[in-house]
This record gives sequence, structure tokens and C-alpha cells, in this order.
Amino acid sequence: MQKHRPPGNLSRRALLSAAAAAGAGLAGVRSGLAGEAAKPDPLITEVQDWQRYLGDGVDKRPYGSPSKFEKHVIRRDVSWLTASAESSVNFTPLHELDGIITPSGLCFERHHGGVAEIDPAKHRLMINGLVDKPLVFTMDDIKRMPRTSRIHFLECAANSGMEWRGAQLNGCQFTHGMVHNVMYTGVPLKVLLEEAGLRPNAMWLMLEGGDASGMNRSLPLEKGLNDVLLAFAMNGEALRPEQGYPLRAVIPGWEGNLWVKWLRRIEVGDQPWQTREETSKYTDLLADGRSRKHTFVMDAKSVVTNPSPQAPLKYRGRNVLSGFAWSGRGTVTRVDVSLDGGRNWRTARIDGPVLDKSMTRFYLDFDWGGEELMVQSRAMDSTGYVQPAKSELRKVRGVNSIYHNNGIQTWLVRGNGESENVELG
Amino acid sequence: MQKHRPPGNLSRRALLSAAAAAGAGLAGVRSGLAGEAAKPDPLITEVQDWQRYLGDGVDKRPYGSPSKFEKHVIRRDVSWLTASAESSVNFTPLHELDGIITPSGLCFERHHGGVAEIDPAKHRLMINGLVDKPLVFTMDDIKRMPRTSRIHFLECAANSGMEWRGAQLNGCQFTHGMVHNVMYTGVPLKVLLEEAGLRPNAMWLMLEGGDASGMNRSLPLEKGLNDVLLAFAMNGEALRPEQGYPLRAVIPGWEGNLWVKWLRRIEVGDQPWQTREETSKYTDLLADGRSRKHTFVMDAKSVVTNPSPQAPLKYRGRNVLSGFAWSGRGTVTRVDVSLDGGRNWRTARIDGPVLDKSMTRFYLDFDWGGEELMVQSRAMDSTGYVQPAKSELRKVRGVNSIYHNNGIQTWLVRGNGESENVELG
Repeated sequence: MQKHRPPGNLSRRALLSAAAAAGAGLAGVRSGLAGEAAKPDPLITEVQDWQRYLGDGVDKRPYGSPSKFEKHVIRRDVSWLTASAESSVNFTPLHELDGIITPSGLCFERHHGGVAEIDPAKHRLMINGLVDKPLVFTMDDIKRMPRTSRIHFLECAANSGMEWRGAQLNGCQFTHGMVHNVMYTGVPLKVLLEEAGLRPNAMWLMLEGGDASGMNRSLPLEKGLNDVLLAFAMNGEALRPEQGYPLRAVIPGWEGNLWVKWLRRIEVGDQPWQTREETSKYTDLLADGRSRKHTFVMDAKSVVTNPSPQAPLKYRGRNVLSGFAWSGRGTVTRVDVSLDGGRNWRTARIDGPVLDKSMTRFYLDFDWGGEELMVQSRAMDSTGYVQPAKSELRKVRGVNSIYHNNGIQTWLVRGNGESENVELG
Repeated sequence: MQKHRPPGNLSRRALLSAAAAAGAGLAGVRSGLAGEAAKPDPLITEVQDWQRYLGDGVDKRPYGSPSKFEKHVIRRDVSWLTASAESSVNFTPLHELDGIITPSGLCFERHHGGVAEIDPAKHRLMINGLVDKPLVFTMDDIKRMPRTSRIHFLECAANSGMEWRGAQLNGCQFTHGMVHNVMYTGVPLKVLLEEAGLRPNAMWLMLEGGDASGMNRSLPLEKGLNDVLLAFAMNGEALRPEQGYPLRAVIPGWEGNLWVKWLRRIEVGDQPWQTREETSKYTDLLADGRSRKHTFVMDAKSVVTNPSPQAPLKYRGRNVLSGFAWSGRGTVTRVDVSLDGGRNWRTARIDGPVLDKSMTRFYLDFDWGGEELMVQSRAMDSTGYVQPAKSELRKVRGVNSIYHNNGIQTWLVRGNGESENVELG
């Protein structure tokens, strides 16, 4: 809160400094990108309140929050769509982000029994089943084992699921916002499994959450020994409650439902458990009535976040088009962007770290003359895989499933800069 | 908040699941790292409240916060040390972090007139002085220019300043906590300067803040054209108010005072301005009474954050030693750790991304038998520079200055696991 001190407390230095700036040859100053001679601008020539009065001191924000001018940047939920808010979803505001890190406060949520609020001193992880020594770990135990940090995307298998049958939701937050990208710190699951000792017939793991839904999924042991982390930190600090505090599984590149939160038990077995979440849910029903099962990997995908329905173009001339691309099979090697619905493609500028199984940022700096655009993006990954059109996906998979829609998204941008979700032929 | 529903609402699945876990051969289960047979543990055998009752739904946290069990993880200020809280400092809790990203809410603060709370719609950036076209930019103007994201550390020149004359402060948060590491997104300053057009005699820039102190510093034009960003985002979202919202300068590898927040004006000139902050402050007084001026670069430095006075060793046997290393001249290539006050050194394990002018995470996984330790770390960077002992620094620089102390830190760890800040030789 800016303190409105009486004028007697006005900082002389601030006044002089502002006066100097205001007087420093404003005749001839031009307005930013417009290139026109600037009209006398009170925002330059007059001292603003934030220059006039002292602001908050360093004792006011032991843990900081966003500016009051950013109140629109929030997760948005659809609990009206679901039976209850405890078993529902909210969405990451992708169109408000930049770079590749999703702020922890904005990472989408998907729960099956609400947020478990666990006292870490009372949390235990048990490893049992086909092991030599069943073990119970405290959080302190886990934090004494060798740890590592990696940046990975987590995408819900149902992300873009509403779009299988055609354009539905108006905004990338809703069509693509069940994804986030975080730096996790944790212990490789391999270290804990070796501690317990695997029996020769061990083939599968069952991960179980400590929430009221007892969420559980089967995971092939091979993946568990490869790159799975048991994470206790995200983006530098402890996991957030809604992301599984104090312990969650990180299953790089695989569907989010496997990343069990509030992790309390890992059982080792010789076959999958056929839990509710891998039989009645998270299987992909094909047109002929058969189902694809254990569809773990998230294929390469991308989306233009700006412009998009929640982020209109506001100016003609120079503009920045931006978006995210990711692949559960490796790194993103290239992103192409079309402004005319796929007739012509330009290679986008990939910016910042390009990491394995991480979201990757792309940009296209372009000039807009006010013409109608059909904006699309198409990701390619290190395996050579190219993100398909939705029509191609439908040919192979039908339209029964809501899972694993990684088709190309189209935004129609109108002459007034507003845009909407459309379906191309 | 966990909802305490009447028992009638108890989830049958949760009960069954917990019962299954509890019954799954608890006889023979061993306690984590202790390796002893576990006593019947009610935290395993009994259903916990967070399994019994539904938690918060997805409509409760539009913008999330840390767990209530993490309330101790905060910035700590020393406004009692300074004339006012508006011109003071607080410190990053380095010993509570992991990975390399500092959460935005925990990045240390240093203000000269408190936090300016600026309406971005009313913010302007003026570029004037030795340019062809003086320009005024709105935030929208700046966001229409080509942008990039980079992870960089920001260290106050006075970080560890109290330690010049000997060990003073008991905790790495206070000795080393005026540093943080963030992914910034912004427009290269070069792009804006080229827009304005530089006169042939342009040599220096003056950056001026829009806060009540009108903070300003001179910056060599060469640096400004090289890698300086005008950032509007940090860690994926808008800058935080206390970090310069809506616009701050990012001056990679150089002292934090140059990274002007709430940036409102850049003047181009042919010599430095000799502002208060680069004459009476931020010059390094030597033993003979002369001063080092324009000491911009932050040399290679490191600190062990765990164990440290705020983070005691709690267990014998396996332990994780951890810390940060950074260099304003490039990348960290190696970190050595000593447990015996510098007699023997072991090369630490560097983990996660190793980036230019970024903090880098190191670990040493070690066994502790309860013996007294003298813990130190020593960073090396890509120029071949080796972090010096404090005694070496004092020989060259004396003890008059509080700036640019990058000497090796020592923590004495006692047999009970508690540690303190000590001075060697």
C-alpha cells in the first residue's frame, strides 16, 4: 500500500529528479512505437504518487504476492461442470505467462478428493510388495538421500479433451490449460527401490496417494527405475499443498494422472493392478469399441497462447506471437507457425532453455495490418514426430475418447483483433 | 482447510485403501534409513484425517500459497538496523531453498524509498540524451518488441558485507541472503536504444527508477548493448511490486544496485553521472584511503546452505550437504567442499542446469559420525577464477569496505549438529 504522507514529507530528491526528467528536452520526444511526436504527457511531465510518497518497507512482505494490478491472472475452475469441486479441475492461465516456468500459485489443479493438507512430520512413505525389505520412510529420511532437480511439464491426459468433437472452449486457458512446467527437486525412485531390494519377478509398481480418494495407478517398473523422481520441492520451495505436499511422484513425459500426489505407498508387483483410474478412466475408447490402455506418453503438442481468445491483438504494426511446445518423448526441436490456417508455415524462434520433457517457449515477431488471421502452431520433437492435425487424429482414434488430443489448434483472429476457437475442415 | 465431515460421509474407498495398506505385511517392515524393524506405527496403521475427509476443492485457491506447515520459510528483515524500513533490506532464506529457482515471494528486497506500487497503464519509459529521437514507451509498446527469457542471479554488492571484519551473523540467510536467482523475460535494451538511435559520442547510460527515491546509476553503454534486458516478467508471471513492477533493468553478473527497479528513464550521455549511489555509496574504500569505483562485476562466490546455523544436522549416518555457487563472469565449472576447514577438499556434485551468470546448485552426499566439522565451499568459474579466502581478500582490499566480499565462508558444526559462523586463521 502506497503511504499517502502529508506534502510536508515530500522527498525533495524525488521532486528534483522528476523535474529534471520532465524538463530534459520533452520537445521532440516521440511516442514509443507510433513514431509520432509526443503530445505533452502528464504521465511524464507530472510527478506521480509513487514518486511523491514512500512505499512499503521491507518488513511488510515476509512472503510476497503479485501486484494488485494482476488480479485477473488466476487459475479458473469449472467446478460447475463436475459433480463436486473436490473432484474437479482448474486451469493454468497460459496466455498470461512468459518464459518456461509456471509460477507455483498458477499451476492447474486436478483432485479426486480435494486437497489433502498433510503435516509433513506425520507423513510416511511405505514401500512393500515384491521387495526384500519392506520399508517405511519419514520425510526426513527421504531428504537425507541423494537428490536432483529437473524441469518437466505435467499434462493431464484429458487436456484439450473437450475439443475432440470440434471447437468448444474459448480460450487457451480452457482448451490447453491442464499443463504446467516446474523445476522439481527430489530423490530418484531408483534409490529407494534399491534400498528395499527388488525381487526377481518385480515388473510393476502401484503408487498410492494419501488423500481422501486414495488415488492409485500402476506404473511399469522400467519407467520407475529410469527417470521417476519422488519430489518434495517445486520451483525452489516446498511443494504446494494442491500439488501433493509433502511428496509427489514426477513421471517425466507421462500423463499427469500417474504423478500421484501426497504419495504414501509404493507397492511392487508382477502385473498392473487394474485400478479404477486405469480401467474405467484414462483408457482411450476407439471408434470400434475397443480401448487403448496404458497410454502413458504425452505426444508432442503446442499452442499459440498470444494472440488467443483471452488475449486479443490490440495494435496494428509490430506484434509478438507466442506460445508453448512440449513433448513427452524428448526435446522440442522446431515449431512452425501459420497465420493462414496451414497454407504457409514459418519457423518460429525458440527462446530460452530447451530441455528434455519440458515446455519450450516460441515466438514469432510479426507485423499485423488488420487482416483476418488463422493462427496455428505445429511442434516437432527429437524423435522426428510432427504434431498432427485434429482431422488426422480423428481418422485413427475416432471421437469417443477425451484423452490424448494433441492436435493442432486454430484461432481465428478478426480484423478488430479479437479471436475465437475454430475448427478447420 | 480440511473439512471435518461427519463420519457418515467417510469415503469407503479411502478406508478400504488405507486398511489394505496397513494390512499389507507390516510385520517385517523396516524403518527407512535406520534399518531397524519398525514398531507398529500408528501413522501407517491408522487412517489419518487427510484420508478420512475431503479437502478443499479447485475453487478455493485461484492463486495458491505455501502450506501452513511452511510458515517459517520467509524473508527476514533487519529494519531495526537501518534508519527506516523504507530504506532497508530483507534476506532470501537460502537454507530453505532447493534447485536453482528462487520463488518470487522469497527474493530478498532492498529499497531506497519503499515499494512503488505502479499502475502499469500509467507507467512510461523515456529514453533521452544523446539519441537521434528521444522516445517515450508505454508498457504495451515494450511488450510488442522481440523478447527473450534468461535465468540470472542478482546479488547486492553489500551481500556478506558485515563479514569483512570477521564472523558476525549467524545464518546463511543473513550472511549471504542478498542474492536470488530468477528467470526474467524482457526486451534487450539494445533494441530500444537502436529505436532511439545513438549519437556518435554516446558512452554511458543513466538508469532512473520511478520510486520515491528516484534511484539512479550510471552504466557503460557497452554493457547496455551487450546483454542488458528490460524485464517485465519474472519466473513466468509479471514482476512482483517489490522487484520493480512493471519494469526493471536486468544487468547480468553485475551488482544488484544497477538493476534499477520501476524503471522510468534512460538517459544517454558521454560520461558517468556520479550519482549518489556510485560516489558516496557503492564504491569500495581501501586501506590507504583511496576508493575502487565502478566495481560492477560480482566475482565467483559460493556458500554451503545446509548444514548452516539455521539448518542443523539432525541425524548421524547419511546426510546431504548442499549450497549455491555463482559467478558474474560466466558459468560455475567446479565447486570444492571441505569438511575440515580447508585441509582436505572434495569436488561437489553440480546438479541441474549450469547457466551463464546464474546460481548453480551443488551437493555433497556424505556420512556423518557425529564429529566436529568445519564446512567450507570454494567456487571456480569459466574464466579460471577461484573464490578466495577472506584473509586473501583482506590483504588486498583492507577492511574498510562493506562491498564485494566473496570470501570463503566457514561453518563450525558441533557434535550435536548445531553450527555457527566462525572465522578461520
